[in-house]
Amino acid sequence: MAAALGLDLAGLDKPRQRAPAAKPAHHPTAESVPYWNRRVFDLDPYIPGEQPKRPLVKLNTNESPYGPSPRALAAIKASANDDMRLYPDPTALKLRQAIAAQFGLAVEQVFAGNGSDEVLAHAFRALLRDDAPALFPDITYGFYPVYCALFDQPFETVPLRSDFTINVRDYDRESGGVVLANPNAQTGIALPLDDVKALLAMHPNRTVIVDEAYVDFGAQSAVSLLRDHPNLLVVRTFSKSSGLAGLRVGYALGSPLLIEGLVRVKDSFNSYPLSRAALDGAAASIADNAWMAQTVARIQSSRAALVAGLEKIGFEVLPSAANFILARHPQHSAGELAAFLRGRDIIVRHFPNQERIKDWLRITIGTDGQCQALLDALADHLKSA
Amino acid sequence: MAAALGLDLAGLDKPRQRAPAAKPAHHPTAESVPYWNRRVFDLDPYIPGEQPKRPLVKLNTNESPYGPSPRALAAIKASANDDMRLYPDPTALKLRQAIAAQFGLAVEQVFAGNGSDEVLAHAFRALLRDDAPALFPDITYGFYPVYCALFDQPFETVPLRSDFTINVRDYDRESGGVVLANPNAQTGIALPLDDVKALLAMHPNRTVIVDEAYVDFGAQSAVSLLRDHPNLLVVRTFSKSSGLAGLRVGYALGSPLLIEGLVRVKDSFNSYPLSRAALDGAAASIADNAWMAQTVARIQSSRAALVAGLEKIGFEVLPSAANFILARHPQHSAGELAAFLRGRDIIVRHFPNQERIKDWLRITIGTDGQCQALLDALADHLKSA
Repeated sequence: MAAALGLDLAGLDKPRQRAPAAKPAHHPTAESVPYWNRRVFDLDPYIPGEQPKRPLVKLNTNESPYGPSPRALAAIKASANDDMRLYPDPTALKLRQAIAAQFGLAVEQVFAGNGSDEVLAHAFRALLRDDAPALFPDITYGFYPVYCALFDQPFETVPLRSDFTINVRDYDRESGGVVLANPNAQTGIALPLDDVKALLAMHPNRTVIVDEAYVDFGAQSAVSLLRDHPNLLVVRTFSKSSGLAGLRVGYALGSPLLIEGLVRVKDSFNSYPLSRAALDGAAASIADNAWMAQTVARIQSSRAALVAGLEKIGFEVLPSAANFILARHPQHSAGELAAFLRGRDIIVRHFPNQERIKDWLRITIGTDGQCQALLDALADHLKSA
Repeated sequence: MAAALGLDLAGLDKPRQRAPAAKPAHHPTAESVPYWNRRVFDLDPYIPGEQPKRPLVKLNTNESPYGPSPRALAAIKASANDDMRLYPDPTALKLRQAIAAQFGLAVEQVFAGNGSDEVLAHAFRALLRDDAPALFPDITYGFYPVYCALFDQPFETVPLRSDFTINVRDYDRESGGVVLANPNAQTGIALPLDDVKALLAMHPNRTVIVDEAYVDFGAQSAVSLLRDHPNLLVVRTFSKSSGLAGLRVGYALGSPLLIEGLVRVKDSFNSYPLSRAALDGAAASIADNAWMAQTVARIQSSRAALVAGLEKIGFEVLPSAANFILARHPQHSAGELAAFLRGRDIIVRHFPNQERIKDWLRITIGTDGQCQALLDALADHLKSA
């Protein structure tokens, strides 16, 4: 199968979750480690999906199987000249202008950062108030509670319904701000725009952060609501639909007041978060709409085929508007299936520590060939089990 | 003069300190801006040196005039392939291995980040204790108090002597940690290694951060002290002697315990701070020692000539171990000289808001041609004044 997919699996390293972390053998305490700030001891950092050193059928971190626009790659190459000796533009003006043009916004409504993770971090720090808990779903992007711990931001999680949809009426209470991923992380389920509107109206004096990392794959963007809602911050990334996860560029769209809050924190943290390569590559990428639309269409088509194939062999699949699906089999645990797939050099993700979704596999939509390899492997396993 | 230097000044934009910042006309308050976290209102962000859009004799932000190693540029170009669709290694293992090999350290003693500004930010957050003030000089890198404001870190500044040297005995008191740039920012003056040793001994249970952004230009590195001092963190950058300011890579060297503290904060903020281009370019750069040694030697030679030339026309120049000098003229203010130089398309930096150095120009060491252009312009001005 690996050969059929054109993969070179020779010399495959034993995959590992992370490279050797510089961890002492003991459990650190303020006595044993006097050098740390007190707030470091209780941090429980986010653990990203595995980045294997060798090619696998890698369906675990929601990357695009089709790579970036050739124009983006050409721009990165072109950035590798002697100007690399000079600091980049700390305000990322040209990139922000390109993004603003794409959405019909003013450049003062655009913030750019080192991946949407950094943009979200600054947004949690700058735009959530700590006089009331921030609200986000119990099942969502796992980084949200991690940011809260880093910034001493109180938060409460709001349970999704039993069908994993968001009930916005559950958010109708005092808050320090609301954070929602749309489509939601892990579930892939989209939130209708009317629900986003309702949330904005419930919290007119608090920031509502809508994390649209996956929106291009089938959900409704909240960008059209920016005009009427100064409390809306839309966060987006070049890592998913633009196929540039390796370049690290994300951005936020919002009212000039929200953007100013982000800029104040950014300029108190790192003046130059985006390299010349990142600035130029991302600007070329966003100008190449056609490439993005084409890759998104292919992924949507592969998603439909994968969902049909999984249902045919007995899986339950949540309705996905993202470039991944959440699926479970009534007779087989997620841990069992993931381990079996790894034996076939296919990596997917599951969340054994999250009770409500521990039975589910999260599967990135790959090429049709990769999706078929996954289906074939699972069908083999279910037959033999 | 511009033509003699091969510069194209046609269509020179009016230089500006920063691109339009998304700033509202009013002074923001918690009443007028209910969306911001309370801690955002009082931030006074760091303002980096100007990054002009057109070529000038740019001697204001301490970049290398010689550009990066050709191997680094080749590695950045090579990174622009379809693997850019995949997330980079969140642990930066290969880059950290290359850095560790360079210094004869274990990989667990190396942390890498998005420029030394980000590395310093994480170090301030993770490794300074807030039960006592952090200590750093009154004249030093302007970002240190900004980080403290962002992280609610108490601090006290310790005055330099009247000759702008550091008296380490002034640091012999309770602290949450000590931060020193060596050579010191703005002055360029190096701190002898014995003084660093004395500081480490004074604060055995607090982190001593030595910011060696400029160390390659003539100061003694504290790296040799790492073996005996688990409380030492050395922070370095690819932006200065490696000529890669546009790539945004910095790193820290320290005991595994200090590095673990940094990793905990980093993994609570952004899993993937370094792009594939940054990881590959920096690893290629550090492997090319010869390039760095050669450019440093040229800059040291130009520095000696520039200092001699400035002294000849009446300037006082502080003894510099960096790729910049601090110089003043007894009869001419720094503001007057900087404005005159700008009229000749030469940008230098000065610090009108810092009382003790408001009379001084900070001049980056450029090529011999750029330094001569600066000297010629100043000589003209002094003659005509």
